Amino acid sequence: MKAAIPTNIHPGLLRSLQQFVGFTQSEYELFCTFLEVCHVKKKEIYLQPGKISHATAYVNKGCLRRYILDDHAKEIIVNFAIEDWWIGDLESFVHQTPTIYYIQALEDSELFLLTRSSFSALCEEIPKYKTFHDEKVQRNHYTTLKRLALAKSGTPEEKYLLLMKEQPQLFQRIPLHYIASYLGIEPESLSRLRKRLTEKPQKS
Amino acid sequence: MKAAIPTNIHPGLLRSLQQFVGFTQSEYELFCTFLEVCHVKKKEIYLQPGKISHATAYVNKGCLRRYILDDHAKEIIVNFAIEDWWIGDLESFVHQTPTIYYIQALEDSELFLLTRSSFSALCEEIPKYKTFHDEKVQRNHYTTLKRLALAKSGTPEEKYLLLMKEQPQLFQRIPLHYIASYLGIEPESLSRLRKRLTEKPQKS
Repeated sequence: MKAAIPTNIHPGLLRSLQQFVGFTQSEYELFCTFLEVCHVKKKEIYLQPGKISHATAYVNKGCLRRYILDDHAKEIIVNFAIEDWWIGDLESFVHQTPTIYYIQALEDSELFLLTRSSFSALCEEIPKYKTFHDEKVQRNHYTTLKRLALAKSGTPEEKYLLLMKEQPQLFQRIPLHYIASYLGIEPESLSRLRKRLTEKPQKS
Repeated sequence: MKAAIPTNIHPGLLRSLQQFVGFTQSEYELFCTFLEVCHVKKKEIYLQPGKISHATAYVNKGCLRRYILDDHAKEIIVNFAIEDWWIGDLESFVHQTPTIYYIQALEDSELFLLTRSSFSALCEEIPKYKTFHDEKVQRNHYTTLKRLALAKSGTPEEKYLLLMKEQPQLFQRIPLHYIASYLGIEPESLSRLRKRLTEKPQKS
């Protein structure tokens, strides 16, 4: 699964490292030497409950979903990750405890992995990478809190429209029943909802 | 509202600082000099939308709730904080942007505040305090992700029973309609649910 870093790195990676912690070109080049490429085929499971997450993963290409199984063995999607997002289970990665999540590729995907030892060595070599990482966790935390509030409030229609507005790209590549799971509504309800919204006379 | 640090500091504060980043007694004493006491009366609003969160707050005594108003002006409770928890809006605190949250005291409460300038000075003086803070955010993030998954899955009964198991102390001091809001269910449904569970013949 692993290979040398290819030349097709998504430009968003350098851009965020520059924007958030002022990475220089040479720091970026050094950073890249710590990455390991990992290809995950469509439908392949990248991580599953009971396993330990040995790396944080930058999605260079493709699309993945993270989910749990509830007590009735129903899949509950916690988040998606497409190009230029990160995915993994940080709790398992940091504490080396078994994860409770599944991570599955929804498309053939290319990940750049930072294993635990690379992560430590990188933070040692370029301390501001730790700042970058911590700030990423912090931003994720803000977003998750807002999503939690939204999950408890809002009608299915409001949740759907917000997702359409904020992440329209997800609708172009992710099967609708996964989007329904992410929104916490039944696939049939989502289909009816979309039909109703399409049929609504548009305001001009 | 502000006064000198009293002698009645909750023992949990020193305990976590020791446990997570190995604070010594003298570091703890120095840390305490950065805190400011703030009293918030029952029902008083400590933070509200549009304001900037100028401090992170350790709850030394009392109980508060953080909530948002949804599009229908319905209150959605995001979290509670009782003794030995922290409360605030980190996003607003870090980026000095207006908060979207209300924080209200549910009991007369005593908070120990770390203002932005104190926080910076403290991290400068005792760098491992920053580690403590970042790890706290990280732990909160894990919990919030799990709560998000639960909010999307699980029946009201499952959500209620889990909260009863994990944080039974909340039921002894927080009005039931707030607990219903936190669980994302209607107060009437929660009452019916509790009645049904009480009436259920207990397994011996």
